[in-house]
Amino acid sequence: MTSELKSLNEECGVFGVWGDSQAAELTYFGLHALQHRGQEGAGIVANQQGHLTGELGLGLLTEVFDQPDKLAALTGAAAIGHVRYATAGSSGIENIQPLLFNFTDHQVALAHNGNLTNAVSLRTELEQAGAIFHANSDTEVLMHLIQRHAAPTFKQRLKASLRQIKGGFAYLILTSDALYAALDPNGFRPLALGQLPNGAYVVASETCALDTVSAKFIRDVQPGEMIQIDDNGYQVEKYTTETQLSVCSMEFIYFARPDSTIYGVNVHQARERMGQQLAREHPVDADIVVGVPNSSLSAANGYAAASGIPYEMGLIKNQYSQRTFIQPTQRLREQGVRMKLSAVSAVVAGKKVALIDDSLVRGTTSNYIVRLLKEAGASEVHLLIASPPLRYPCFYGIDIENTRELMAANLTLPQMKTKIGADSLAFLSVAGLIDAIDLQSTAPYSGLCVAYFNGDYPTPLYDYAATFEPPRVLATT
Amino acid sequence: MTSELKSLNEECGVFGVWGDSQAAELTYFGLHALQHRGQEGAGIVANQQGHLTGELGLGLLTEVFDQPDKLAALTGAAAIGHVRYATAGSSGIENIQPLLFNFTDHQVALAHNGNLTNAVSLRTELEQAGAIFHANSDTEVLMHLIQRHAAPTFKQRLKASLRQIKGGFAYLILTSDALYAALDPNGFRPLALGQLPNGAYVVASETCALDTVSAKFIRDVQPGEMIQIDDNGYQVEKYTTETQLSVCSMEFIYFARPDSTIYGVNVHQARERMGQQLAREHPVDADIVVGVPNSSLSAANGYAAASGIPYEMGLIKNQYSQRTFIQPTQRLREQGVRMKLSAVSAVVAGKKVALIDDSLVRGTTSNYIVRLLKEAGASEVHLLIASPPLRYPCFYGIDIENTRELMAANLTLPQMKTKIGADSLAFLSVAGLIDAIDLQSTAPYSGLCVAYFNGDYPTPLYDYAATFEPPRVLATT
Amino acid sequence: MTSELKSLNEECGVFGVWGDSQAAELTYFGLHALQHRGQEGAGIVANQQGHLTGELGLGLLTEVFDQPDKLAALTGAAAIGHVRYATAGSSGIENIQPLLFNFTDHQVALAHNGNLTNAVSLRTELEQAGAIFHANSDTEVLMHLIQRHAAPTFKQRLKASLRQIKGGFAYLILTSDALYAALDPNGFRPLALGQLPNGAYVVASETCALDTVSAKFIRDVQPGEMIQIDDNGYQVEKYTTETQLSVCSMEFIYFARPDSTIYGVNVHQARERMGQQLAREHPVDADIVVGVPNSSLSAANGYAAASGIPYEMGLIKNQYSQRTFIQPTQRLREQGVRMKLSAVSAVVAGKKVALIDDSLVRGTTSNYIVRLLKEAGASEVHLLIASPPLRYPCFYGIDIENTRELMAANLTLPQMKTKIGADSLAFLSVAGLIDAIDLQSTAPYSGLCVAYFNGDYPTPLYDYAATFEPPRVLATT
Amino acid sequence: MTSELKSLNEECGVFGVWGDSQAAELTYFGLHALQHRGQEGAGIVANQQGHLTGELGLGLLTEVFDQPDKLAALTGAAAIGHVRYATAGSSGIENIQPLLFNFTDHQVALAHNGNLTNAVSLRTELEQAGAIFHANSDTEVLMHLIQRHAAPTFKQRLKASLRQIKGGFAYLILTSDALYAALDPNGFRPLALGQLPNGAYVVASETCALDTVSAKFIRDVQPGEMIQIDDNGYQVEKYTTETQLSVCSMEFIYFARPDSTIYGVNVHQARERMGQQLAREHPVDADIVVGVPNSSLSAANGYAAASGIPYEMGLIKNQYSQRTFIQPTQRLREQGVRMKLSAVSAVVAGKKVALIDDSLVRGTTSNYIVRLLKEAGASEVHLLIASPPLRYPCFYGIDIENTRELMAANLTLPQMKTKIGADSLAFLSVAGLIDAIDLQSTAPYSGLCVAYFNGDYPTPLYDYAATFEPPRVLATT
Repeated sequence: MTSELKSLNEECGVFGVWGDSQAAELTYFGLHALQHRGQEGAGIVANQQGHLTGELGLGLLTEVFDQPDKLAALTGAAAIGHVRYATAGSSGIENIQPLLFNFTDHQVALAHNGNLTNAVSLRTELEQAGAIFHANSDTEVLMHLIQRHAAPTFKQRLKASLRQIKGGFAYLILTSDALYAALDPNGFRPLALGQLPNGAYVVASETCALDTVSAKFIRDVQPGEMIQIDDNGYQVEKYTTETQLSVCSMEFIYFARPDSTIYGVNVHQARERMGQQLAREHPVDADIVVGVPNSSLSAANGYAAASGIPYEMGLIKNQYSQRTFIQPTQRLREQGVRMKLSAVSAVVAGKKVALIDDSLVRGTTSNYIVRLLKEAGASEVHLLIASPPLRYPCFYGIDIENTRELMAANLTLPQMKTKIGADSLAFLSVAGLIDAIDLQSTAPYSGLCVAYFNGDYPTPLYDYAATFEPPRVLATT
Repeated sequence: MTSELKSLNEECGVFGVWGDSQAAELTYFGLHALQHRGQEGAGIVANQQGHLTGELGLGLLTEVFDQPDKLAALTGAAAIGHVRYATAGSSGIENIQPLLFNFTDHQVALAHNGNLTNAVSLRTELEQAGAIFHANSDTEVLMHLIQRHAAPTFKQRLKASLRQIKGGFAYLILTSDALYAALDPNGFRPLALGQLPNGAYVVASETCALDTVSAKFIRDVQPGEMIQIDDNGYQVEKYTTETQLSVCSMEFIYFARPDSTIYGVNVHQARERMGQQLAREHPVDADIVVGVPNSSLSAANGYAAASGIPYEMGLIKNQYSQRTFIQPTQRLREQGVRMKLSAVSAVVAGKKVALIDDSLVRGTTSNYIVRLLKEAGASEVHLLIASPPLRYPCFYGIDIENTRELMAANLTLPQMKTKIGADSLAFLSVAGLIDAIDLQSTAPYSGLCVAYFNGDYPTPLYDYAATFEPPRVLATT
Repeated sequence: MTSELKSLNEECGVFGVWGDSQAAELTYFGLHALQHRGQEGAGIVANQQGHLTGELGLGLLTEVFDQPDKLAALTGAAAIGHVRYATAGSSGIENIQPLLFNFTDHQVALAHNGNLTNAVSLRTELEQAGAIFHANSDTEVLMHLIQRHAAPTFKQRLKASLRQIKGGFAYLILTSDALYAALDPNGFRPLALGQLPNGAYVVASETCALDTVSAKFIRDVQPGEMIQIDDNGYQVEKYTTETQLSVCSMEFIYFARPDSTIYGVNVHQARERMGQQLAREHPVDADIVVGVPNSSLSAANGYAAASGIPYEMGLIKNQYSQRTFIQPTQRLREQGVRMKLSAVSAVVAGKKVALIDDSLVRGTTSNYIVRLLKEAGASEVHLLIASPPLRYPCFYGIDIENTRELMAANLTLPQMKTKIGADSLAFLSVAGLIDAIDLQSTAPYSGLCVAYFNGDYPTPLYDYAATFEPPRVLATT
Repeated sequence: MTSELKSLNEECGVFGVWGDSQAAELTYFGLHALQHRGQEGAGIVANQQGHLTGELGLGLLTEVFDQPDKLAALTGAAAIGHVRYATAGSSGIENIQPLLFNFTDHQVALAHNGNLTNAVSLRTELEQAGAIFHANSDTEVLMHLIQRHAAPTFKQRLKASLRQIKGGFAYLILTSDALYAALDPNGFRPLALGQLPNGAYVVASETCALDTVSAKFIRDVQPGEMIQIDDNGYQVEKYTTETQLSVCSMEFIYFARPDSTIYGVNVHQARERMGQQLAREHPVDADIVVGVPNSSLSAANGYAAASGIPYEMGLIKNQYSQRTFIQPTQRLREQGVRMKLSAVSAVVAGKKVALIDDSLVRGTTSNYIVRLLKEAGASEVHLLIASPPLRYPCFYGIDIENTRELMAANLTLPQMKTKIGADSLAFLSVAGLIDAIDLQSTAPYSGLCVAYFNGDYPTPLYDYAATFEPPRVLATT
């Protein structure tokens, strides 16, 4: 299911290049492959023989770079770029990244994917010491920290600053003479290093972006690492040793592109295994398996394979449903006008449908899809969710900071089933999820963060601790 | 595969409403479901108590109606709309439909899907008689004919004019007091009549648009029919009795949306049967079946089911690949930068792949995809096309008027296989196609037009006869 | 005073070039000098080795040609252009000129300044004979007439058509091999022929446009003339001998640029003489003379010189008052917020002001200016209009087709004075106007059309005769 | 002459309101009257019950507020606004003012007219102390100073900061509970306080903006003053006692609108007196006096009155010459194509012309105008400049920081006359200028800054001292 149907949003994608004369173009194509990670703003900063210049704007990458000139102006052999999902209250142009800071004697550009848990307290401290913040982003906090440290080199100041910030983060930092990539101590967000045939280095949020530019995968950036890339090659350093792998499980469930591989696990195959595991945990009596396009198709395929029930294309997604300024009025909605999904009556009429969705957030879309299938003639609709119930907020970079809108945090399983209107409802277990992803780590939960499901956060909550609210109902399943 | 990858284009979609106070809004949502039939222009004309006003523009529907005001201005209980694919030489705003003609004492709006085969000779005759044409479209020819007939009523003049034009056409015509739908004597293009719960009538190029507005399907418009819809209901008339069903088979193969049903046959299921038939005609030794997203997924599913070879998601289409103004430079293309499709290495590496595509036009995309799969590690790629070789031009509304770019018109099967780089190449037979679609008509080819495959055109070619060129090679398969 | 303050509008300006390799650029700069004749649309059609292509749009010339590319695309050695004032009901893009007609075997572009008096009856006749009109302009009528004549050459058909149309018109017509300029039998609208140093010919609505491109003035086009310009030079023909000079006197009073010369009379100097004559007809006891910027400054200068009262800059016009989308609300207007004109308090405080305006249309602006001056401290304001009272509609190309909004058609002089709030009010006499312009013609009114002042129209009114309404009050002065 | 012809630019206009429910609308209309002070950016920040929100953009005010919604969104009873001229290297959107600073617990908006002479050294110091600057403007320097002071109240920190900055400045500062207006110790830039009929207070760069909103003038802000306006009325304080009046004389000569009054002197009348004084200092044998439109018309009027030579409209300025994207090519310029000014041949032919211009910067425009008049037939052209030769850079807010482009800094009077092509050339003396403006102050030069003419700067040059270059030639006159 797309983020347009769900209120569940990844907060960004980053991409960087060092050592190719068409660095900005490569960054453009790399970001294009990461567009699913953020559609509300994009930008690229290029290093033109030591001088940084950038272009950024609101909207899709293709809207920001709507004239070839804009990209062509960004010459130079290094660049970083960013695609952004804008959280409430930070949707202005001033928050679009990379942020480019011009000092009298040097420049720094930063691009960030993630969310800091101590940003507010750091910002308050910095303001009391005279700092002026221009935008609302966590990114600016890091720049202020770097600027105020006394250490002689930029790298030392950067490492000291990375130790001060908490939460989930994957940073790309471009200066006149180097590109830095830094990951938080838990590795919440994915970040991969690759190399082009001509020797240039590439860093990207997902490996699909490496593939897009034909870069060879070298390694995942590891928790607590900072990699410096410059004309001498790349050098990996640990800025902290207090690390513990806790990759965001939602990357596997929903966010990442199926062709990406994270810590050795291909996302599409992980989803297929989630579907297979779901079939084992929750067999249903159905005639056909239908997946919600596009993100649930892998899981639906897995469910079909494991259950032996044939997979059918019972739902069609309108390929042109992005960017609609006009929505049906209340009267037309009641009359049944729909824009994004259609049920294929010829496929589902008279059938018992096993409907596979990757996750369940507010439940409104599920209710809508179940009705769609029933109006198209489905005799039964069994909703099977290929991940556990989302019951806790995320503070590391996914926009579920509030549990009031999470259906599973507020209703019991029978209440949810009734509200959705499905004939049955079931979720994958946390253990099943962990097995399906199969991350091969000795860290807790095999190296996954499953806090949204069970509230077991791998770090202290810092600024968020005071307002944290547990789910209103006990465990759902 | 999308039209962005293929140079194969449908020439339009039409939608009309009579009797609903939100006629223009319904038309907007109806057209939205038909957007795949034309992305280069859109327009809506509404009947506001007898006065027609319109809004139209270049680009996607959402680009034309980029402010709710533009749609809100189109009040009234009847409307027609159009989405357009612009052929070379007719891409200007003046060709965007519906065309609205303002006479001193009346108004007429026309929307057209199809292509006339005697438009040039009619236009030449009309100009010699003093007519001035504003645009290049066939639609304007019909208006001039209507205007110059002497019969007392508009309907009589319209019927007489319909008898003069030849080729493939589905017209919607809106006047101050009626909505007319007219189909050519062969029914080349689909056109369906439906009814809303409140009694309003709806006409659309495909049934998926009826579903989108929750209209109940009443009937397909039949070859040679003209339907008049007004405040007294609808009335079906034959403007000619010399009819013979020849539905465009490419509608089933590629153009129509999978959830549409044409003359009783669901498109998705027809495609599944094409895939099944293809499996019977051309079994291959493969580990996995992979379909080219999105249009070949139904056929791939059918091939997998019939062959027993598992279906896998080996190719991913970037959902944001529409509307890109920036393409990789030659150097980057050679370096392997790609924007629209990615192969999932984890799925295809080391595998023998049965690659299913719905059709083959120029062959360049097939070559590209085969290389993509091989670079991702596929050990063998067998390309299986779920339709026969395209060898002849179409004159009834599909943009294949020139055979020079049709691979199968110029190369033998072994030459094609070599050029594409596949380990084997096979096409569905014409007989297999006809069986798979299974249209249940007693007309030749069971009521399908298969002229692009075998050159057997169901009508004379008129203006096109003089320049017609047969394929350069003998039958491919 | 600008047309933004008055509801009095000229209906267009035309410009054409034959024989210069930068014909479209020259047309651009020529039209720029004619922008005051129409601000709501502009266009240029160029002849590129026999093929005509154009670019046009809504708004100012600089808005239509907002990218150098648009102009650069119009290569070729001949071009015609048009700036347009859009009358009610004809403001759409389809009415922007030049109109370019594409026939199967030839092309014609037309640009028109003026208004036909028999357009409606011609259009009705043509439609009954099967013609389809695309837009509302009179220009299209001429094209239909040309197209339907049987004469063998284009020029013969054009001349026959010119004899059929009535009213005021100045046409430029571009074909693949010639540029035609044609003027109505009364010469209502100005049109001048000039020559560039390189021998190329130029035709323009006003001589100021010839000056702008450094063209030497050759001659005014005379009533009933058609001039053909081609690679052999220019050739003047009379298409009719029934002519009588009746130049629009409003061109001298208000429309034309002060640096233009019409039939030998410089506009600025004519206005100065109007001011001098006004001083002789209506001396007032005043301390200073103030003109309404910008169009009344010449007349004010003349009044000051003849009366001996010093001219002072008592009113300032905001140079940025064009194109404002935001107007003061009712409350702010009442509070005194004003955008376009300011009174210079230091100049007018305590002074008796002789306020000179070129003409008086609805009177609302005069009332506004009188109040402005009094609020700035003027002790008396005597409003002196340098032209006679506007009491009759114009049918030859000025937008005063309705007398309901003409103050002098509905109120007596004392009523007008009271409503405006001036201490006295006086107008120039018709005889004084004729003397001041001093056109040196033996035709009635020395060759001027003064019908707006006295109702003595130099031609029959044709289509307008039926609805013609005389002024409601008897002669004003 | 407009700034489009001269390379001489004022650097901004400011406007503020406290106490009117339509504060942003009033600010819009006030800025509209100040648009001549800056055309490259505009913005408004409104105080909506203590919360500040703003809208800003590049271009004219009417381009920034191109939809009424944008202004309507700025509700609240206080607002400040800014129109900006962008100096080289600071043309980005991030420099458009008012700058709005969002702190965790408060907000501040600043708008600035002027130029600081110690901005670079302050910025360097601040950065070394960890400050991060977002844009290049001097305005941000003030904010950093305020933020880093330790004093308990905002007002105390503001006053302390004002004492640290040097140069010319007129600041408006808006917080949640007050509007502050502050002027530099020399009063280089004008700033006036007024009051609306409803009691609301208004501050503006020029009194013409007070007139536009019907505000009554209260007083000029005096050098070294800070005025605090809040719900208790206004309160004037001196933040320093080391003051000395040195109003920018170019405000009187060229920048300010003729209807503005600065320190009791009306600008139009001052210019008339400059023209009169010029006639006394430099009588010429001429037939007519012609002023360069629009800014020299007052001086030309004065020259005519004092000399007895009649004033004539010999030059016409195209009213539509703003915002042209297309300029004549080299070939067309040589061919005589001109866009902005036209000479009225009928007026100047055969005449000896006394041409009055307000000032002379690079001389290229003067050369152009002299040629224009001669080509139109003028027998002699005597160029008389109603101000002294510009020979020194300005560091207080006018964009003449470089003397290389100042004609009078590089050539002697005879050289200038030759280069311009005039028959004679003369300038007003510095003493004559001071007499004509007649500012009635006991400060040096009667309270005017005349440093651009004689190099006698009223303050130290600080950061500019090191690179200061004197004129290359000795005194011109």
